[in-house]
Amino acid sequence: MTQPPRGFPVSEFRTRTRAAQALMAEHALDALLLTTEPEIRYYTGFLTRFWESPTRPWFVVLPALGDPIAVIPSIGAHLMRQSWIVDIRTWAAPDYDDDGIGLLVDTLAEITPAGGRIGLADHLESHVRMPLADLRRLEKCLSPRQLLGDATITRRLRLVKSEHEIDKIRHAAQIATRAFDRVQGTVRAGMLLSEVFRRFQMLCLEEGADWVPYLAGAADLGGYGDVISPATDAPLAEGDVLMLDTGLVWDGYFCDFDRNFSVGPPEPSVESAHSRLIDAVHAAMEVARPGKTIADLFHAMNAVANPGGDVMEAGRLGHGLGMQLTEWPSIIPQDHTVLVPGMVLTLEPSVTVGPGKLLVHEENIVIRDGAPEVLSSLQSRDMRVI
Amino acid sequence: MTQPPRGFPVSEFRTRTRAAQALMAEHALDALLLTTEPEIRYYTGFLTRFWESPTRPWFVVLPALGDPIAVIPSIGAHLMRQSWIVDIRTWAAPDYDDDGIGLLVDTLAEITPAGGRIGLADHLESHVRMPLADLRRLEKCLSPRQLLGDATITRRLRLVKSEHEIDKIRHAAQIATRAFDRVQGTVRAGMLLSEVFRRFQMLCLEEGADWVPYLAGAADLGGYGDVISPATDAPLAEGDVLMLDTGLVWDGYFCDFDRNFSVGPPEPSVESAHSRLIDAVHAAMEVARPGKTIADLFHAMNAVANPGGDVMEAGRLGHGLGMQLTEWPSIIPQDHTVLVPGMVLTLEPSVTVGPGKLLVHEENIVIRDGAPEVLSSLQSRDMRVI
Repeated sequence: MTQPPRGFPVSEFRTRTRAAQALMAEHALDALLLTTEPEIRYYTGFLTRFWESPTRPWFVVLPALGDPIAVIPSIGAHLMRQSWIVDIRTWAAPDYDDDGIGLLVDTLAEITPAGGRIGLADHLESHVRMPLADLRRLEKCLSPRQLLGDATITRRLRLVKSEHEIDKIRHAAQIATRAFDRVQGTVRAGMLLSEVFRRFQMLCLEEGADWVPYLAGAADLGGYGDVISPATDAPLAEGDVLMLDTGLVWDGYFCDFDRNFSVGPPEPSVESAHSRLIDAVHAAMEVARPGKTIADLFHAMNAVANPGGDVMEAGRLGHGLGMQLTEWPSIIPQDHTVLVPGMVLTLEPSVTVGPGKLLVHEENIVIRDGAPEVLSSLQSRDMRVI
Repeated sequence: MTQPPRGFPVSEFRTRTRAAQALMAEHALDALLLTTEPEIRYYTGFLTRFWESPTRPWFVVLPALGDPIAVIPSIGAHLMRQSWIVDIRTWAAPDYDDDGIGLLVDTLAEITPAGGRIGLADHLESHVRMPLADLRRLEKCLSPRQLLGDATITRRLRLVKSEHEIDKIRHAAQIATRAFDRVQGTVRAGMLLSEVFRRFQMLCLEEGADWVPYLAGAADLGGYGDVISPATDAPLAEGDVLMLDTGLVWDGYFCDFDRNFSVGPPEPSVESAHSRLIDAVHAAMEVARPGKTIADLFHAMNAVANPGGDVMEAGRLGHGLGMQLTEWPSIIPQDHTVLVPGMVLTLEPSVTVGPGKLLVHEENIVIRDGAPEVLSSLQSRDMRVI
């Protein structure tokens, strides 16, 4: 399996930056302030697992004109210098008295007019990654400049992926496909679920994942109670449905899909639930065309998976996918986002198979002109048997 | 290797809750609002990798009296019901019109007086995990109730670990020790660094890690430029110093330490830098006693590692450790936290070995009455050679 090149040509970051600046002009924003991992990586390419540490805040500022400016802890300067960013300003974090706020205020004051408008992500799926006391201090120090919402600029840009981005997601999904295909040769009844999870993560790495930030799942008789649990130390038993849902990463991009396995031959109720899930995915594939909406995908899947009405325990039937395990939008009836080529989505129908028991299935697709491209090698209606 | 039991006795969560409530009374807070993974897990035991998804906010409220109340997306109800929390209120998230704010306001209004004071983490290392627009809406809806800082209550409690917590960190550290001990049998010159990282993560899983949320490192001639980079596809070469720094997790608790490997016999400058790092750790071990301070640890290490003065590229020489890869406090001269038994710390001296080249070494310890307990099997002065 040849892997795509790592990283991006600088032109891609420039394109993203210019596109953001065009939207900033529309919304009369003089700067964007970025504080979270995906926002910062989107414009700079800064890729590190160091975000796992909550200690240090990181800032990138997008001016109305020109290239992004990094205002970051000195520990990150060497890595940021490998990116296309030239203007890198650092402080020795952690600093208990002023953890970058002074430097950030100076930077923002330099590139925005007095009374300028600075946009900060404030919408669903976002948060501001800095201490609340520092945010309030920043707001005060910047006055009369204003901190406002970012008009969802970055979220809107990230919604449609470039071919370089899709190449990485496809590669991640192919790795997961190969790992799932090896589960039946690796897992057997009696194995502890914690051991199953461990071995599956090893398969993902063996097949080429850079790391495995997400694995959830469950195993229970005839279905499972939820889809977000970590493994217990209970052994896999005959009649269990084992579900493994992974978000593995290659070069900073995720896939996100699951597979269900029956330990021994599946009960007819489980078999038919599984078939309905597969049919629901196919129904969504039929409507996944430019011009249709996210809500259309919801209704296509739900009509097949839950002919009796909406089942909304999970809250949605899929979502965006890319630099994060889950991204905007959510596949719910209230989302009227129009599909355009380059959107990468998960289709994730769920059905109830009994009191407190459900089955969930998930695939990853790209919206294309015409039929969607499938990234995750579609599962057949037949359940995989261990 | 016998593993400690998973989870905690309910008494431990009660103790944490009552301790927080005692501090809340001191600070005249009528409730704490928790929004981040470690805060919520600390009081409830709610452990899931689902936080990887940024979509849904999660809330837990600590009233002045009584047990915590979960205000969470319905997708998490099944897992939260496995915890000791009884009062679980859910909504079908994501909800584009009201993503839990209405339910949260009702809950806070129910348990606090009009004009009540609600604490929210606002200090270094914290952030508020919800959209900024929702935070502002919450503030408005709660008025005349006030959203204030939490007086670092949760941070202060988390600083000193229980024996149950230490058992988990020790177990994680022992897993990492065994994985590091297998590197020389697994890695060889010519192997791509990305492959080295992949194999090391597999070793961690094979030795019993639940998952590996953090691996950073580098390999370069005679030292490396930074300590937070992901792997490149460059091959390991003779004369390289390979550093692997892992934060692996067992039952939700991290270890965090690194090991350096010389590819071929080390240069004298590298060898002596490595010895100084080890000596610096031992110097810190000598002063790591109850009654001493974090600043004392800094000075003990820095005097040995950098006799010429402070080297602060990394910003600190260690930190707290537990439910997160890095926790409060930071080992810097400005931190005067007094050491008490039960604090778990990393000792992480660094030295410069040439222009833009450094070497970093890290161990994990517990402050005890008398000498500290070492969790990470101290590295000897001799460098490991590949």
